[in-house]
Amino acid sequence: MNILLKEVRHKPLLWLLAFVPVVFAAAKLKPEAHTLLFVLSVLAIVPLAALLSHATESVAAKTGDAVGGLLNATLGNLTELVIALTALAAGQTMLVKASIAGAIVTNTLFMLGTSFLLGGQKHHVQEFNRVSARMQAGLLFLATVALLIPSAVATADSSTQAAFTQSLSLGLSVLLIVAYALSMLYSLKTHRELFASAEHADEGEAPWPIGLALGTLAGVTLLVALVSEIFVESVQKAAEDFGMSPAFVGFIVVALVGGAAEMASAFSGARKNRLDLSVGIALGSASQIALFVAPVLVLLSYVIGPAPMDLQFWPGAVVMVLIATVTATFVTNSGRSTWFVGVLVLMVYFIFAMTLYLLPPRAV
Amino acid sequence: MNILLKEVRHKPLLWLLAFVPVVFAAAKLKPEAHTLLFVLSVLAIVPLAALLSHATESVAAKTGDAVGGLLNATLGNLTELVIALTALAAGQTMLVKASIAGAIVTNTLFMLGTSFLLGGQKHHVQEFNRVSARMQAGLLFLATVALLIPSAVATADSSTQAAFTQSLSLGLSVLLIVAYALSMLYSLKTHRELFASAEHADEGEAPWPIGLALGTLAGVTLLVALVSEIFVESVQKAAEDFGMSPAFVGFIVVALVGGAAEMASAFSGARKNRLDLSVGIALGSASQIALFVAPVLVLLSYVIGPAPMDLQFWPGAVVMVLIATVTATFVTNSGRSTWFVGVLVLMVYFIFAMTLYLLPPRAV
Amino acid sequence: MNILLKEVRHKPLLWLLAFVPVVFAAAKLKPEAHTLLFVLSVLAIVPLAALLSHATESVAAKTGDAVGGLLNATLGNLTELVIALTALAAGQTMLVKASIAGAIVTNTLFMLGTSFLLGGQKHHVQEFNRVSARMQAGLLFLATVALLIPSAVATADSSTQAAFTQSLSLGLSVLLIVAYALSMLYSLKTHRELFASAEHADEGEAPWPIGLALGTLAGVTLLVALVSEIFVESVQKAAEDFGMSPAFVGFIVVALVGGAAEMASAFSGARKNRLDLSVGIALGSASQIALFVAPVLVLLSYVIGPAPMDLQFWPGAVVMVLIATVTATFVTNSGRSTWFVGVLVLMVYFIFAMTLYLLPPRAV
Repeated sequence: MNILLKEVRHKPLLWLLAFVPVVFAAAKLKPEAHTLLFVLSVLAIVPLAALLSHATESVAAKTGDAVGGLLNATLGNLTELVIALTALAAGQTMLVKASIAGAIVTNTLFMLGTSFLLGGQKHHVQEFNRVSARMQAGLLFLATVALLIPSAVATADSSTQAAFTQSLSLGLSVLLIVAYALSMLYSLKTHRELFASAEHADEGEAPWPIGLALGTLAGVTLLVALVSEIFVESVQKAAEDFGMSPAFVGFIVVALVGGAAEMASAFSGARKNRLDLSVGIALGSASQIALFVAPVLVLLSYVIGPAPMDLQFWPGAVVMVLIATVTATFVTNSGRSTWFVGVLVLMVYFIFAMTLYLLPPRAV
Repeated sequence: MNILLKEVRHKPLLWLLAFVPVVFAAAKLKPEAHTLLFVLSVLAIVPLAALLSHATESVAAKTGDAVGGLLNATLGNLTELVIALTALAAGQTMLVKASIAGAIVTNTLFMLGTSFLLGGQKHHVQEFNRVSARMQAGLLFLATVALLIPSAVATADSSTQAAFTQSLSLGLSVLLIVAYALSMLYSLKTHRELFASAEHADEGEAPWPIGLALGTLAGVTLLVALVSEIFVESVQKAAEDFGMSPAFVGFIVVALVGGAAEMASAFSGARKNRLDLSVGIALGSASQIALFVAPVLVLLSYVIGPAPMDLQFWPGAVVMVLIATVTATFVTNSGRSTWFVGVLVLMVYFIFAMTLYLLPPRAV
Repeated sequence: MNILLKEVRHKPLLWLLAFVPVVFAAAKLKPEAHTLLFVLSVLAIVPLAALLSHATESVAAKTGDAVGGLLNATLGNLTELVIALTALAAGQTMLVKASIAGAIVTNTLFMLGTSFLLGGQKHHVQEFNRVSARMQAGLLFLATVALLIPSAVATADSSTQAAFTQSLSLGLSVLLIVAYALSMLYSLKTHRELFASAEHADEGEAPWPIGLALGTLAGVTLLVALVSEIFVESVQKAAEDFGMSPAFVGFIVVALVGGAAEMASAFSGARKNRLDLSVGIALGSASQIALFVAPVLVLLSYVIGPAPMDLQFWPGAVVMVLIATVTATFVTNSGRSTWFVGVLVLMVYFIFAMTLYLLPPRAV
């Protein structure tokens, strides 16, 4: 517990933890102040996500390479998963889908692009492990195909369409999880030497003792779930007050909030000329959401949701995920980056953000 | 003839030739037993295709490099061509189109992916000739553009649309055949040194004497044509009995049957760490179907078919061919492969197969 | 003035300048002879564009690297800009859009493909600066995303759609111009050493004195504007006489006329084995039109046009621009080229040209 307090004292980001009790109090006292609750829940989720991320890494560090890699790979996006599960339980399937597509796009474009830009401002030309980036891009490509196909073969006949999409989504979810499991077997076991420089690139932080790490993992996950409930309830109405379209909220706002902790790590890695770390976090996180979080949500929607979720996304979202994947493949192909590569990637993101911001409310 | 018998004795695959007389007898005696006829005709076509393939290679080996390459390049997919011509003569344009798109997708994804997987299980990292793979991928890309454009510029006005699609398909077919001819000039004559390791990589089999080879070529082509008639007649009804959609039959079943002989060669090459051979067969076969077989069928449809065939495909098929081409370009770009690359490619194929299997019958 | 005359005497292309007075006389005497006026105005624009191009380069050479690069980058497509502005002032928004998309496609496919083909016929294998080609391809990709998104997220509700497309187009135009400005900062200043061999590759021509160059720039721009007026007025009706669809005219004819001068430079560079120059002109010109000319036209349409122009293109045009960008990315990826690469690229162009030629008039 001492270590935890020391950690909090040295990391200004964690001072935001003060907002956790504040948001619970506010939700009790002013349940209709949506904008206030939205802002407070965002401020509370960000430090919780950072704690969660550090706790996962600490457990991973203690359990050895294979299990640790597995843990990192499954719990790395625990915040996104918990937020999405809360939204799913509240029946907000549209928000869940938007936040999945948004998280893929935000990690691939915003996190990767900003890493390239920040790193490139300090270092003239940076290099990174192409093999690792190519595998992540390949996984993203596979997930994109899985999201694209249900829309591409959609039939006009709506009676058969629903059942078809449902069973296809179940099958695709199983395939994606199998592909994800095999990718771990590949990168952690059979060909781990190819991924050498990108893996286990610790951030210079000492791991916590296992007891503290496990306790934090459990306790903070619970806190994230509770704050997420307030976040999910308030986000749509707050967005209206801010004049944002629902698509913009799901795609951009939720994705940025859910990924804030990882972004901090990725950006700091880029500044330290450890671009392998940044590319690994950005693309690894995107492919994890696409091949693990999304299909797990589809499968869990049969258990916890009021209605099952499928993998048929709004065509605009599919196009954006597709463009994001192509962009990632294109820029990681050479294994080198400069600040302008970051600009190009960010510009694609800004095009999406602007489009979603301007989109008329009923369009999605 | 002695050689032929010896060949049959040493290759278990050729024992299936016993099904050739069986299928003819069954077609006479039980013309309504569609499922039986389907299974028997598949069992008969596979060894015939293997014989045809070996006869073509033997003639090619005897006629010298340039003519031989030309022969291989035009007769290499004779089985697919004969099956498609039989279907065309029977007026089954939809089945022909599905089998063309299916053969491109199956060769690009299933044959290439399985080669990578089988080779990668035995050899840690495999290398292959990038230049050759890039040219094949480029040809496939060109063919994909030709298939994509008629759908992309389709007009709402159906009266002018039909005439437009017809004349466009004729023009595109001529362009594709010209491109294919120039690709042979390029790889067999002006820049043959770039393709060195991939070309004429014999499989350790002795070529047949020219007389036997030519006789086999003629006789077996006739047999394939006769069995194809039974196959084409029975396949749709048999598929219904098996609960398969027509799209699945055309795309997956016909393509697997037509390409079985080449797959055997490609997989055996991959196990022997001769991945150049496997990639050459898989992508070469796909681009040959796209740039030679398909346009020849369009041109011949004016002569033999009850109605002319065009190049406007079902949009879902165009998307699948496009994704297959992008996948091939992506994975052959580095010139190296491991088992996981094979898994990625096969997963894309499984996504397509699953989608087509679940597709409601009236969707295509 | 002496230098100018000497220049004219030594360059047969400039003899076409004789058509400038002819076209003005013809426009006065026979204003209804559309086909004649069309042919004459084409013959007059081509040498004017060549003069304009040389004048821009001369001013650029005198003003030092940074300003010169800037000038080349902004005035390099002055002919296209003046023609488009004339069409915009005449309210022909459709023609402007078709000519923008057509110029991107023509430069990327026809100019690049012919350069590869002509260079490859003389030189076995040619190499060029990949870094420069990759940046141009990246810029083109960004512009393609900007053209793709308005169509991809188009809503069925037409009342909100128009306002949405309008404001989105304005925002995208600003983003594209910013990206273009940053690309100049990158290639001319921060990372200019990466572009070494492609930049300032003069064609062995002596630059003009600054006075002559500036005078020519001003005078010839005015002449191009005047001839463009005749061209824009006559082109549609002349096309009908020739049996061409309006889409073919905008996409192919206007683009070829506007880019004739640059094509002469690119082709001559390829023959001299200076493929860096050819690739730089072809892709640089395409990305300049996409990221500078097009957005400037959108912004200026609020000032000079009868109606504002947006960035929502005909879907077929978007698909063609997308395919052209992918083709450019694919073939420039290896940094090497042969004649067959040129054939592949040209074939894609011929597919587009044939499709547009055959397209029924009302389709676009």
